[in-house]
Amino acid sequence: MKATLSFLLTLSLCWQSNRTSAQTTTTISSPDKAVVLSVSNTPAGQVAYRVTYKGKKVIEPSTLGFALSKPQVSLTRFTIAAIDSATIDETWKPVWGEASQIRNHCKELRVTLADQSGSGIQMQVRFRVFNDGVGFRYEFPTQPNLSHFVVADELTQFRLSADHRTFWMPGDYDSNEYLYNTTKLSEVAALAAIRKEKDIALQSVIGDNAIQTPLLFKTTDGLYISLYEAAVLNYPIMHLQLDKKTLRLQAQLTPDAVGNKAYLQTPSKTPWRTIIVSDKATDIVGSKLILNLNEPSTIADPSWIKPQKFMGVWWEMHIGKGNWAKALGKHAANTQNVKKYIDFSAKNGFDGLLVEGWNEGWEDWFGNWKEEVFDFVTPYSDYNIDSLTAYAQKKGIKLIMHHETSGSVTNYERRMDAAFQYMVDKGINTVKTGYVGRIIPRGEHHDSQWMVNHYQRVAERAAKYKLMVDSHESAHPTGLHRTYPNWMASEAARGSEFNNAPTLGITPEHTTILPFTRMLGGPMDFTPGLFRFQLNQFDSSRTQRVRTTLAKQLALYITLYSPLQMVADLPENYEKHMDAFQFIRDVPVDWDDSQVLAAEPGDYLMIARKTKGKDSWFVGAITDENSRTLPLSLDFLEPGKTYEATIYRDADNADWHENPEAYTIEKKRVTSKTKLNLRLANGGGFAIQLTQL
Amino acid sequence: MKATLSFLLTLSLCWQSNRTSAQTTTTISSPDKAVVLSVSNTPAGQVAYRVTYKGKKVIEPSTLGFALSKPQVSLTRFTIAAIDSATIDETWKPVWGEASQIRNHCKELRVTLADQSGSGIQMQVRFRVFNDGVGFRYEFPTQPNLSHFVVADELTQFRLSADHRTFWMPGDYDSNEYLYNTTKLSEVAALAAIRKEKDIALQSVIGDNAIQTPLLFKTTDGLYISLYEAAVLNYPIMHLQLDKKTLRLQAQLTPDAVGNKAYLQTPSKTPWRTIIVSDKATDIVGSKLILNLNEPSTIADPSWIKPQKFMGVWWEMHIGKGNWAKALGKHAANTQNVKKYIDFSAKNGFDGLLVEGWNEGWEDWFGNWKEEVFDFVTPYSDYNIDSLTAYAQKKGIKLIMHHETSGSVTNYERRMDAAFQYMVDKGINTVKTGYVGRIIPRGEHHDSQWMVNHYQRVAERAAKYKLMVDSHESAHPTGLHRTYPNWMASEAARGSEFNNAPTLGITPEHTTILPFTRMLGGPMDFTPGLFRFQLNQFDSSRTQRVRTTLAKQLALYITLYSPLQMVADLPENYEKHMDAFQFIRDVPVDWDDSQVLAAEPGDYLMIARKTKGKDSWFVGAITDENSRTLPLSLDFLEPGKTYEATIYRDADNADWHENPEAYTIEKKRVTSKTKLNLRLANGGGFAIQLTQL
Repeated sequence: MKATLSFLLTLSLCWQSNRTSAQTTTTISSPDKAVVLSVSNTPAGQVAYRVTYKGKKVIEPSTLGFALSKPQVSLTRFTIAAIDSATIDETWKPVWGEASQIRNHCKELRVTLADQSGSGIQMQVRFRVFNDGVGFRYEFPTQPNLSHFVVADELTQFRLSADHRTFWMPGDYDSNEYLYNTTKLSEVAALAAIRKEKDIALQSVIGDNAIQTPLLFKTTDGLYISLYEAAVLNYPIMHLQLDKKTLRLQAQLTPDAVGNKAYLQTPSKTPWRTIIVSDKATDIVGSKLILNLNEPSTIADPSWIKPQKFMGVWWEMHIGKGNWAKALGKHAANTQNVKKYIDFSAKNGFDGLLVEGWNEGWEDWFGNWKEEVFDFVTPYSDYNIDSLTAYAQKKGIKLIMHHETSGSVTNYERRMDAAFQYMVDKGINTVKTGYVGRIIPRGEHHDSQWMVNHYQRVAERAAKYKLMVDSHESAHPTGLHRTYPNWMASEAARGSEFNNAPTLGITPEHTTILPFTRMLGGPMDFTPGLFRFQLNQFDSSRTQRVRTTLAKQLALYITLYSPLQMVADLPENYEKHMDAFQFIRDVPVDWDDSQVLAAEPGDYLMIARKTKGKDSWFVGAITDENSRTLPLSLDFLEPGKTYEATIYRDADNADWHENPEAYTIEKKRVTSKTKLNLRLANGGGFAIQLTQL
Repeated sequence: MKATLSFLLTLSLCWQSNRTSAQTTTTISSPDKAVVLSVSNTPAGQVAYRVTYKGKKVIEPSTLGFALSKPQVSLTRFTIAAIDSATIDETWKPVWGEASQIRNHCKELRVTLADQSGSGIQMQVRFRVFNDGVGFRYEFPTQPNLSHFVVADELTQFRLSADHRTFWMPGDYDSNEYLYNTTKLSEVAALAAIRKEKDIALQSVIGDNAIQTPLLFKTTDGLYISLYEAAVLNYPIMHLQLDKKTLRLQAQLTPDAVGNKAYLQTPSKTPWRTIIVSDKATDIVGSKLILNLNEPSTIADPSWIKPQKFMGVWWEMHIGKGNWAKALGKHAANTQNVKKYIDFSAKNGFDGLLVEGWNEGWEDWFGNWKEEVFDFVTPYSDYNIDSLTAYAQKKGIKLIMHHETSGSVTNYERRMDAAFQYMVDKGINTVKTGYVGRIIPRGEHHDSQWMVNHYQRVAERAAKYKLMVDSHESAHPTGLHRTYPNWMASEAARGSEFNNAPTLGITPEHTTILPFTRMLGGPMDFTPGLFRFQLNQFDSSRTQRVRTTLAKQLALYITLYSPLQMVADLPENYEKHMDAFQFIRDVPVDWDDSQVLAAEPGDYLMIARKTKGKDSWFVGAITDENSRTLPLSLDFLEPGKTYEATIYRDADNADWHENPEAYTIEKKRVTSKTKLNLRLANGGGFAIQLTQL
């Protein structure tokens, strides 16, 4: 209690000393002065922030505030009680990642706001201004007039300066697996976008003007602007409500079963609201702003956390060769079949093998909001987990566990410890979790505070058992892999499995948008590596197909970063292209450095990455439905050294639609002075391995 | 699948053969012919049941049915597809109880109903007709047109024949801790009843005409009728909606967070709806109908389940001597204080000692819908659980664990295994659970299906660890102690702690109504044995008081049956009346036989019980606010034997209000021919121990 009082005394003093300047505007710039943030307090008490980049408008004056339902108070009129500022400049090393070290360099402004309505509540808004954008969050310190409180609405606004070209997904509290739509901001039409997505089994409509973050704008004056959030813990996922007349977006937090948004207790803080901005598209893809806004790792000894390449008994069920459910016949997760995968994975030097459909329950798992489905510890009778674990160990492969919860999270939580202990007992140290279906507790959403807490709980609990986590159908990632480096990847977007979805599939542009949006939050288990493009291999009636070339599938291992990279296709499909498969055998999953060489959202992307601890580089480039040539300067290589480049590119006659399997593999000697001009077919790409000689 | 088809074939054949009689009424009588049930199918397709007792109307024709929300269908018009009947006559032995064996003797009628609306759904209604009433439930067998389904409403009706005198509590999805109101049925006014109960912290109002089961009627033609339910598993608790014009009650199931009532999957069955009826009030109190409708014990070896008398570090916190929360000071659950209780309990031959406030979290546990409160394994620093366990063991006492969940059931479920293992590690084998506060998952209620499943899960999980359970603030019991005999007692009604509630407290009549209502479902941890009646012992400002005499407190050990009986008051209060305390030392908690000798709801009750395995008897008698003399014939004693009767009765000048501590202890030689005429003071009672000489 003593600490609280002295803290409030300080605030009170600050308030006094700043009183005369309460109506003024406070401005702070990024270290390089490109980004300017200003915070103003209107005579009516509103507090608004504004962001510019090199003098261009990014966010027009936009107000901040909250509506609480307990205590019932609207926090929208404030007196500025104190303003503090600081500079942060530190460099930190992630456990794994796209780079071996990351600089966190920003200016911080902390504005203490006192509610004018008589509630006695104070809160702080902490802004951090980086060279590539702004992050800000609300903080509710310990104080006499606020302890437990319930958030009815967060009133944060983002007002855009013009009707920008916008890459958006419709707001949906339960799914982030949409294609991105590209329209003017004023042309957002969420309901139509939802209706056309017939392959998303569970849709929770918010409204015609509701859209998701991450959200990307391209302005006519050459700026790229991303709106997203960082470090979402103990708080719901933020969607956005658009007012088309004013081009103003307002936070739309995901509600719980009774309509509340968040249950908080002082001291507490919201996630960061992030605005990443640049006049170079490559800067957006390369931004570390969201990672820098997350807290450092909570795992003291991360030596057991290992990036991995893995295969899976998985895609064959999608394309109709096998089934998850044993009772349906053709049960894929049978001992003999899994041994074949182990053999192939071992022969090719991979680390792990995911096995789905290993456990009882798949006969009746989906669509009925059923609570007791899987127990996570009972293998099907034809799946001899002990013999497979032993066999895998002998071959140097680790099985990867699959925990499909079917959305019944209460069931998973009460069985989680037993399930994790079972993994430990079986020598398994990575789990793919899944949340397909309506959430139980009924009325909660994939994006609500309760589920956000669940994902965190899984990460923390898994760490106690030294388990790595790859979550599917979880909420969009917000950089938490910094804090919980064992939560290595998530799906949380439309991944490669949608190649098999009958309606919209995956468009050629989709993978050129993800790095500007979803992937700003963290690694994605996209599951690249498909080598067969017509998906009628086991069912001739299927018309679904993969809309890339084979070379683009290789490039995705570079352009879509993940420390868990799947090798998604069937052994028999790889065996037809073992020369191209060599790239997947060779490509690393951990990096010392990454450089985004060329990028345009919805069009193309080219990234170079340096292998962790080695002087070898890999380059990946992808394009959308248009063929193009991307000039590539190898000036990132060490000067004076010679490298062998192995180039896996689209053959000259390649075309995702007509001729996807046409690729060319070339070897060349190159140096840092070499410049290449490689053509990408429509829906194509290339991948290069550069090994120092 | 084969089984299903042959089953349906049988149904189909039955339907054909019964077709011509579909419009007729089918009648079945109890073994003694007193209770008559008839089921009729109206020309419009409604199916109604009717109950009479010795020719008097009990339930007037009342319809049956369901509204499902998935599939969306109203099951209200039926063809009777088959009618089967059977006789059940069996005798079974409970693990513990009011009698060492129980006869289950009834006639059964199973009516198979085919929906007329075109859904193709069939269901069965299984009626059982006992000498003291009727039970019926719905069953949904495996069938081609129904698998998973969601109950929107159960449409079961109970139409009364006249405006009976009614003992009722207001409908409330989260509390059953009301006083009973006694009015004509047409005078039910639930909202007013809720408003006057200012000491119930969480009230979930249903409506002005909503009332709870158990419900009791007394008719002007001399019948006592109880409406209740049995074997509530995987289904919500049933409340009732009253239509005052028609005196018709309709099932009002407790909804979940999204308004659904139950998620079921064929084959499934509802709880039994029970109508207990007699012209003798004693038959209602003594009815075994609800127990007989529950399934046999699931515990193969129940040797570890032991009825117990226990003291508690508990009442002293209620009356202000100590606190649960350590930070508030006067922390009751400190090692030294608990040792004193162990000493006193051991000296007096009790089995257990409950310790509340032993674990961290009480500083901030209530009222904020907070999820992370207790972890159930972290004692306060002044509570040395290991030394206390050792000390208790040396003295022959077992500590009883307290798990207050604060309503945060998700938190409890994810920690339950660790908490139970902790108990095992500490040599503790009984847990008092508590559910004070709004339920998490938010939007669920204490009475909703999800919570009903939780209570069952606790019972089952506890059995795996060989733990006995005493649940507080749980849903009303429905005879499940037969199936889960380790779930020994629950509160689930207004218990003795309400003596300390400032507004209404516990009226003298309350304990004369409980045996006709709440206790039909199972043992209650009422916590009798208060020896001090003014509750200003540690806080002179308190005006609350206990509204009984001391002798009545003794009688409650007989009239309120429980295999877990608390000895609720403080050692220092008992030490002033060690002669009366001798009764509590002597009274057993397990019985070979029980006979209800006299009873009138709201007025008085007298019960005799025979000690398990011994030829000794105990008699308890209580009265309401009126003094009275109850003639007592000891003809239940073995003829020809002599017994010593130790009579603990109100002194002639006793009076709950003026002179509650005035009691007289007398010893007498008696035989089965002895007749006593003992006076009970207003708010008084007596207790007799009869030991064969």
